[in-house]
Amino acid sequence: MAEAAERGAPASFHGLTPRLMAAIGTALEGGQDDVVRAFVRPLHPSDLADLIERLDEDDRRRLVQAISDAFDPECLPWLEDSVREAVMDQLGMVRVAEAVAELETDDAVEVLESLDALEQREVLRHIPAEDRAVLEQGLTYPEDSAGRLMQRELVAVPPHWTVGQTIDFLRSAADLPDQFFDVFVIDARRKAVGVVPVSRILRTKRPVRIADIMSREFRRIPATADQEEVGRLFQRYGLASAPVVDADERLVGVVTVDDVVHVLDEEAEEDLMRLGRVGETNVNASVLGTARTRIRWLLITLVNTLIASTVISQFEATIERLVALAVLMPIVAAMGGNAGMQVVTVVVRALATGDLATDNVRRVILKELGVGIINGMVFASILGTVAALWFEDPRIGLVLAAAMVFNMVWAGLAGSLIPILIQRMKIDPAVGAGPFLTTTTDVLGFFSFLGLATLFLI
Amino acid sequence: MAEAAERGAPASFHGLTPRLMAAIGTALEGGQDDVVRAFVRPLHPSDLADLIERLDEDDRRRLVQAISDAFDPECLPWLEDSVREAVMDQLGMVRVAEAVAELETDDAVEVLESLDALEQREVLRHIPAEDRAVLEQGLTYPEDSAGRLMQRELVAVPPHWTVGQTIDFLRSAADLPDQFFDVFVIDARRKAVGVVPVSRILRTKRPVRIADIMSREFRRIPATADQEEVGRLFQRYGLASAPVVDADERLVGVVTVDDVVHVLDEEAEEDLMRLGRVGETNVNASVLGTARTRIRWLLITLVNTLIASTVISQFEATIERLVALAVLMPIVAAMGGNAGMQVVTVVVRALATGDLATDNVRRVILKELGVGIINGMVFASILGTVAALWFEDPRIGLVLAAAMVFNMVWAGLAGSLIPILIQRMKIDPAVGAGPFLTTTTDVLGFFSFLGLATLFLI
Repeated sequence: MAEAAERGAPASFHGLTPRLMAAIGTALEGGQDDVVRAFVRPLHPSDLADLIERLDEDDRRRLVQAISDAFDPECLPWLEDSVREAVMDQLGMVRVAEAVAELETDDAVEVLESLDALEQREVLRHIPAEDRAVLEQGLTYPEDSAGRLMQRELVAVPPHWTVGQTIDFLRSAADLPDQFFDVFVIDARRKAVGVVPVSRILRTKRPVRIADIMSREFRRIPATADQEEVGRLFQRYGLASAPVVDADERLVGVVTVDDVVHVLDEEAEEDLMRLGRVGETNVNASVLGTARTRIRWLLITLVNTLIASTVISQFEATIERLVALAVLMPIVAAMGGNAGMQVVTVVVRALATGDLATDNVRRVILKELGVGIINGMVFASILGTVAALWFEDPRIGLVLAAAMVFNMVWAGLAGSLIPILIQRMKIDPAVGAGPFLTTTTDVLGFFSFLGLATLFLI
Repeated sequence: MAEAAERGAPASFHGLTPRLMAAIGTALEGGQDDVVRAFVRPLHPSDLADLIERLDEDDRRRLVQAISDAFDPECLPWLEDSVREAVMDQLGMVRVAEAVAELETDDAVEVLESLDALEQREVLRHIPAEDRAVLEQGLTYPEDSAGRLMQRELVAVPPHWTVGQTIDFLRSAADLPDQFFDVFVIDARRKAVGVVPVSRILRTKRPVRIADIMSREFRRIPATADQEEVGRLFQRYGLASAPVVDADERLVGVVTVDDVVHVLDEEAEEDLMRLGRVGETNVNASVLGTARTRIRWLLITLVNTLIASTVISQFEATIERLVALAVLMPIVAAMGGNAGMQVVTVVVRALATGDLATDNVRRVILKELGVGIINGMVFASILGTVAALWFEDPRIGLVLAAAMVFNMVWAGLAGSLIPILIQRMKIDPAVGAGPFLTTTTDVLGFFSFLGLATLFLI
């Protein structure tokens, strides 16, 4: 919740307070570049990124201008894609190349990813040959794969070393990652054969051999694995870091938990945005860009409601004779649509997390059918009674009740079946299931209610 | 996505394959307890928990029965609340107490939390006095606070120690956590004054003083902080672990990233479920339990549609004279409702992640108003034309178009304002905003369309 920042939590807890934001804003407007730099210098790269994202376009340009000589490269990976592009354009490709060269490989690859092919080449040209080769190889892995997520900087030792040798090596080696959680053990062919948590090395006496304290049972991540799978793996086994291996099981990199935290969060957020029919998450995006994305999703709703209207138009004669139907008909559609979306939400999420797999599909569908029957009867009783009293005609109540049961049962069945079938067709159920379901509950809702009314009331 | 397990990923990647599930199922049905135990023994506690959750009630009882003598206590914290209760009931409180005593404090507190007060006392009675005091204190922190999330087991040293002294201490100390990422530095009053990542200790020569390598700038978590804030903090600064301090800044525990990964995920999932009006996430819950939760949410929809129906009933005379209105009226409500839910989804998420705070509220509302105006005009043109051609009357098209612009602008304004106001009232916007918004878009949609029609068409 956003409250923390407002409540004025201790400075040590959040780096970018509303007060600091306001002060920096004033300094920017006043053109006091020195003051701006003094405020920005102590910020964590993540807070700096947040600051840059929150400013409007003019202030953002001014800020980047003011700090461009001492721009912290670590801040680039934390920026949203659209903002990052703007900042990099302003910095120029030579400065971006310097920044990228300073980053660890996973962060450098992430920054490079957001450039187009031409800019990528331009930036890579300014990077020393050795680093360039590593980055170019990182870019050969598929997008959103473990290969892109991993960093190359890691600590690997042979199993015959002792703890003492390992510590001496770590104390003298120059090219180590800033921080690491595990030391990996590799054989002569660079195959990953073991893992030792750093804290275990620290607790073991010098003469003990690494082979005697390493875990031989550990999770290896194929470089081509999807980053969502990697995220689930970290979550499932509470990992801090995990080795990434190529097709020959050779160690090529390491994924650390701080990279994964973002993947998991993004994934749940993606589902949320797709079920909300939004397709973008960014409150800072432009009005025109936002309108364009949203229109795409609203067009689906448009087609949906036009189909529903066509169904209603088939019953114009019935409605003309009994206008109460026009008053009640949205109820059946709305209740069915909402009940169905409840099922879709649960099922889409369960498919994403792997809680719903082949072994429990049948059980879940039967369960949702059961829930649909129960809820259909509950709301049929309530609404049937309401309608009968309202229009002083028990037959209207009965027709509404029957249509309600029918539509809620359909909502349970279709709400669980549709996402599962869509996933089988290799389409993201979070995108397709909602609109498809609503169209069916609208059409069936109007059709069953107006159809029954035509048969029994007219 | 669930595909990984089905594609037959390497055994090292996921522990619980569909094949293994099937084999265990067969062994359970056949009463071959030995076979079941052999299958279950090598499973990671998290995989065992997953297995227990996926079985139906009978098989679950059989499994717990079969493995009860060698039940792995580490599996308890990984279980969903409802399943965990069932398993603990079956194990009995004495066995549960033994299990809890073996867990680290954060996991033990999590397990205790899911028991009622009576059972908690019963379990605590069977736990050695020293451990019991620690657990009882853990339970005094508010639910979902850092104090509940943290573990007491940690490594803390004074700043004047050398790296060599620290390593010697770690090699001889008995009561250390299984794995740790940071060593904390405390003064004589147990105040946290520094943090040293374990890998830094490993890379530093023995005579160097801890005070010279410790980070003095680090994030301290108040024990009363909400776990969502803690999650955001870890994500924001890419932390592996962070010290928890009491009101006097004294070190009382440590939160590690593996606990936090769940918090972040749960939070995004909660928003998803609330916006989907579900309120529960569990595909394995019972039919009756699920029906009951869902009915609560559907009752809101019921009230919503009844209000909308009342609005329609005010225009019965108009509809009777021009039945085309009944055909078209759901369109205005549906388009407004969907456009509004897009805004609500984005705004609720931005409030939750802190991307929307006091400093950009005005900008976001103005932006959504702009998007509403643009999209209103786009869909007014499309639908106005469709309706005019369909019913061969340009006036019907004009009325529909006007109502559409009005309702889409309202959707943009209300969709951003409602969640923000609800949050100010200290209510979760993910719960309240959707239904409240839909009621207004339905009511205004029907009212504006039928009202304009009454004025200009009848």
